[in-house]
Order: sequence, then C-alpha cells, then structure tokens
Amino acid sequence: MKLLEDRIRREGRVLPGNVLKVDGFLNHQIDTGLFAEMGREFYRLFQNDSVNKIVTIEASGIGLACLTAYFFETLSGHKVPVVFAKKQRTANQAADVYTASVESFTHGRSYQAGIAKQYLSPVDRVLIIDDFLANGCALGGLRQIVEQSGAVLVGAGVAIEKGFQDGGKLLRESGLRVESLAVIDRMDESGVVIRK
Amino acid sequence: MKLLEDRIRREGRVLPGNVLKVDGFLNHQIDTGLFAEMGREFYRLFQNDSVNKIVTIEASGIGLACLTAYFFETLSGHKVPVVFAKKQRTANQAADVYTASVESFTHGRSYQAGIAKQYLSPVDRVLIIDDFLANGCALGGLRQIVEQSGAVLVGAGVAIEKGFQDGGKLLRESGLRVESLAVIDRMDESGVVIRK
Repeated sequence: MKLLEDRIRREGRVLPGNVLKVDGFLNHQIDTGLFAEMGREFYRLFQNDSVNKIVTIEASGIGLACLTAYFFETLSGHKVPVVFAKKQRTANQAADVYTASVESFTHGRSYQAGIAKQYLSPVDRVLIIDDFLANGCALGGLRQIVEQSGAVLVGAGVAIEKGFQDGGKLLRESGLRVESLAVIDRMDESGVVIRK
Repeated sequence: MKLLEDRIRREGRVLPGNVLKVDGFLNHQIDTGLFAEMGREFYRLFQNDSVNKIVTIEASGIGLACLTAYFFETLSGHKVPVVFAKKQRTANQAADVYTASVESFTHGRSYQAGIAKQYLSPVDRVLIIDDFLANGCALGGLRQIVEQSGAVLVGAGVAIEKGFQDGGKLLRESGLRVESLAVIDRMDESGVVIRK
C-alpha cells in the first residue's frame, strides 16, 4: 500500500537489533487518517469472507483493529466488534479464558495472551489484525486462541511485515492467509528496502 | 449520552469492590459503532476548541481515542493524531520522555505513564480521552504530562464516570473541563443508577 510504504521510507528509523521505529505514526503517535485508509484496504482484501469479528492484541494493535472494524461495519452494514487479547506476565488458568503463550520479539520475554471465552465462539468468522509481523509469535498465539474457540479464522491483516524474518513464510505455508500492507525486505542504518 | 447509558443499564455488571464490568462493549470486546457515536459526541462538545492532538493511555483508551480522532479529522478537515502514554512498572528517567506516576484503581498498584517528548509541544491543543474516570489518577497523570510539555490542555472526554468517587469533582474544581458521556451515581449488586 503506497501511502504506508512512502511513510515508512520517509519517517521509519532503523535501530540496532532489527528494530524498525515507526512510532511517529503507528505505535506511539497514531495517524488516524492513515489507519482509516489501511482499514479500508483490509476491507477491500477480505470483503468476501463474511468477517464478523476482528481480533487483535493490546496495546498497539487496538487502534488499527478499531478503525478497520469501523470500515467493515460501515461498508458491509453488519456489526463487526473488535476483541483484543490481554497480556499477562503469569499464566492465568481461569476456566473462562482462552490463553496462549507468546514470545515478544521487541522485549525479549514471553507473556500469556488471553481472551474471555464468551467473546469467541464457533459462529464467529475472525480476521486477526496487528501492526507488526516479524517472527509470527503474536499472530501464532492469537491463531491458537481463535482455534481453541472453534471460530473460523479467515486470515490475518498486518500493517508492516519484516519479510527477512520467517514468521510470514511459516504462517502462509501452514495455510493461513496473511495480507501485509508493506513488506520490508532489508533494513540497516542506511535505510529500509520495501518489497515491490 | 443515551446510547451509552442504555447499554450500561442493559449489559453492565457490578462486581465486588465497585468494579463496573462493561467488557462486552468497552474494554475487552469493543463495539466500534458505539465508539464512533461517542467520537462524534466528543467532537460536538469540543469542536470550538481547536483540538489538534488527542492523548490517551494504553490499553483500553486507545480504541475510543482513535475513533474520536478520526471524527475530529473528518469533521474539522485538520490532522488530529492520537498519542497514547505507555505504562511501565519502573520509573524510566529517559531524558526524552515526559512521565508521571499513576495509581491504578482497578489493579491496586502504581505505574509510570510516559510520552516521548517529540510528540507533545507548546503548539499542541490537547484533548484527553479515556474510557473510565473514578479517582482521577490516570487523568491526573496525563494532565501532568501535557503540562510538562507546555501544550494547552483544552479538556478531557470520558466514556463512563463513577460520580460517587471524587476524581471528576476534584479535576473540575481545579479548573479542568471534564465531559463524561455517562455518570454512574450509585451501583450495587441490584444494578446501576445513572445520573439524569
């Protein structure tokens, strides 16, 4: 998606450890106009999949998930709530929560992601939305949670995929449809190379 | 705001310790259609205040802040980014971050809220958006951060205020404009009484 790619080229900064800093528009300060266009694009990509629920994980996925869900509702005429998984440091074995363990790429530690059982069920057709895809751990955890619930997972929409890490490749090979709006092929201190 | 009040009456559950559980539409599952109407209402209330930035705190404020900012942008024709404060357990004295200490009502512990200095400055006219107002600690912390930056704080917009706790009263007495879309006067196991 050209609007996002141009923004990454112009404002993205590469920090040591393969960290792409885009907190001027994506995950600290948020450009809601850009998020709205990304939401419209996810709708265009998944409009024929009868999505009725969007799942993401706190915190930085929530803004994009909400604007995406708003356009799904407005353009389809059906309710499409967002459910965001909560992060916890310790395993919570509450009987009424679906959980999965997730290793965080940015923070180098793992946590539990959880969604209350009452908000996911076999009648749901779920689209997962997240801001980043690198090693695929967050998406993998959300997928486990959706599958535990018996809901249908129609795919995942991601803002920025680090194409030089293998999360996207592995998820696609396992049969998940993953749509990324910008794929980074290479990055170093001199800048970012985006896949054409 | 009637739409929100009706929803609280219908779906809100009161848990021990004055906790109002509204995670079916506000802070776990999110009704983005409702959030859009709340965003339009915040725009109606603050449309003459030249707001050019919306500040909130992760995680559950982000969705409402993003949909509110989307309507501020769409209806005013000007850019209105969201900046969300990040929560940290430990004091981070980084020179490039404004921070404030916040005591969490729900979780009974305190944390540091922080916003990178580059995203707030004296040219900003800030509206704070949050989902809940109880003892006012989160709003108070965000206010401190905005004031450190030299930005103008035009007010705060809150989804649900617990009117029987004194956060809203104290903040208004100190000169802050606070607009709450639903004010709970009383709640117990038999239900919720909303201020008319």
